[in-house]
Amino acid sequence: MEITVSIDAMGGDHGAHVTVPAALKFLKAHPDVNVVLVGLGDAIEAELKARHASAGPRLRVHHASEVVAMDEAPQLALKNKKDSSMRVAINLVKTGEAHACVSAGNTGALMATARFVLKMLPGIERPAIAKMLPTMRGSSCVLDLGANVDCTPAQLYQFGVMGAMLFGALNHRDNPSVGLLNIGSEEIKGNDAVKEAAELLRASKLNFYGNVEGDDIYKGTVDVVVCDGFTGNVALKTSEGLAKMIGQFLREEFSKSWWRKLIAVVAAPVLLSFRHRMDPRRLNGASLLGLRGIVVKSHGGADSFAFYCALEQALEEARSGVLHKITETLASHTALTATPAEPE
Amino acid sequence: MEITVSIDAMGGDHGAHVTVPAALKFLKAHPDVNVVLVGLGDAIEAELKARHASAGPRLRVHHASEVVAMDEAPQLALKNKKDSSMRVAINLVKTGEAHACVSAGNTGALMATARFVLKMLPGIERPAIAKMLPTMRGSSCVLDLGANVDCTPAQLYQFGVMGAMLFGALNHRDNPSVGLLNIGSEEIKGNDAVKEAAELLRASKLNFYGNVEGDDIYKGTVDVVVCDGFTGNVALKTSEGLAKMIGQFLREEFSKSWWRKLIAVVAAPVLLSFRHRMDPRRLNGASLLGLRGIVVKSHGGADSFAFYCALEQALEEARSGVLHKITETLASHTALTATPAEPE
Repeated sequence: MEITVSIDAMGGDHGAHVTVPAALKFLKAHPDVNVVLVGLGDAIEAELKARHASAGPRLRVHHASEVVAMDEAPQLALKNKKDSSMRVAINLVKTGEAHACVSAGNTGALMATARFVLKMLPGIERPAIAKMLPTMRGSSCVLDLGANVDCTPAQLYQFGVMGAMLFGALNHRDNPSVGLLNIGSEEIKGNDAVKEAAELLRASKLNFYGNVEGDDIYKGTVDVVVCDGFTGNVALKTSEGLAKMIGQFLREEFSKSWWRKLIAVVAAPVLLSFRHRMDPRRLNGASLLGLRGIVVKSHGGADSFAFYCALEQALEEARSGVLHKITETLASHTALTATPAEPE
Repeated sequence: MEITVSIDAMGGDHGAHVTVPAALKFLKAHPDVNVVLVGLGDAIEAELKARHASAGPRLRVHHASEVVAMDEAPQLALKNKKDSSMRVAINLVKTGEAHACVSAGNTGALMATARFVLKMLPGIERPAIAKMLPTMRGSSCVLDLGANVDCTPAQLYQFGVMGAMLFGALNHRDNPSVGLLNIGSEEIKGNDAVKEAAELLRASKLNFYGNVEGDDIYKGTVDVVVCDGFTGNVALKTSEGLAKMIGQFLREEFSKSWWRKLIAVVAAPVLLSFRHRMDPRRLNGASLLGLRGIVVKSHGGADSFAFYCALEQALEEARSGVLHKITETLASHTALTATPAEPE
């Protein structure tokens, strides 16, 4: 199947300067893929020209006259900027002209606009932000990472279904294991929402592992980690902060004296491959799940390689038909729940 | 002031084998400190003998006939083991024979027992677990780390007061800054409890910075980070998991081939000082705050050096009069709130 990806070319801290080269690399890597660059025509054309490229049958430039600022209030952006690059790019998914949309823009505005334009999938109450995180065993999908502060048990269960389908799609795996993020104290085993969500997950057809704790995320104990958006956001940001601190400590230790700097030169190949392994750009791209369309959010500060990785993720999602699988799974689970006595 | 610390000598994965040598090192480091080793007399005496040490005026052995297992249900331990080393060690704080108690035992049982025996400080509704975490600027105090799943705004405010007093005591600093852990999405700024807690903290005499995000913990943006126990526990455990993963990746990169192993030998002094800097043992010791007595929880798997660090923390707390400061601050804040029009 020929896939078309619409790109909010103006989104992110660097706009077209990052999105255009990423799109060109993406087109080169996938001869069966088309791209629509949405945004200020002049800016996009200038970036294309600077890279000796131009629009053609596989690369279309779609002019949009407005840009959503990175710090703009989501509801204002939604209300006032109907011709923003973000909104028009999402519209292309709605009309079927694109199979997926990628934006590095304002997360809140992207979520609000995508939800307004695309609407929710049947059976899903709230969208969730899902992301692959590196683990000792490979990578795991964690959701929600900040779209929902308070979650009902049913919503956490839906996150489980969406996460399992996304993980399966991105890793070509059936029946991934799902864990529910909880705390380890013996006395208290989570709040009521988490306890009830565990019951729902246990009763479902998902491969439910049970409760997991924070350290299980990076151990790779399960393929999918389900949590509410408050907890997930704190876990993600805390991880980012810790990784930065460790990186800085390591750099400092290797530059404390002239002979330590010399050792750093000797150790450079090892340190570089360590750095490559820890490179967050390779897992750039968070999926906005639960919508009637594929939307991938790139980190706002993404460089061209990182944005390219987000495009790759959108392509994988589009190819795998992840939305169809989510709807199907939810429907079959609901049928099962409705008729518990019936043999399968 | 001469300080006496009671030690649950049987607690933790290694019991007296770890607690006794740590106590001996502690006594050596502080000539004005006394220690009471509580637990099975024979086991303690055997460990002392193996280290050519014996009880004396500064080192007392207090026999307790029972031991709380690491996986024992807290309420059962509280009900059935009235002569456990943990309970007797806490009792010594209650009776005034010790100024602080340190245990590496079962967290839930320690919390339940300490709360039952010591009772809460006036003005504090729930105890909290607080810990110093390393940051880019030094260290910050984070609480609650798992004692309370759901917290009211008033409780979060009380955590702020307790954390500020603890940080001040351990770091000899007045007026430390306090931040409230929240999420960064523009659209949603935390749940109701967090929003209301921010109001209480802002209206208090504390040096309230405002909301902070997960990455601010390790940036060291504030001295004290306040959160509910669910979020705090996930943040802490996630950090532990990530630190372990990064450590493993680094080791793997340095051992992938014979020449990389050779580079590791050359880089050994740098890697060792990096490892020392990241050593979690140096910050071992979580304070059970809010009780009418000082109780410090050591990691269950602590070795003798780590347990020694927890003893140091208990000593600092006892010397600084942290409990008195918490009570005083809470009382003065309440007075302020009650008479807002009165000039200070």
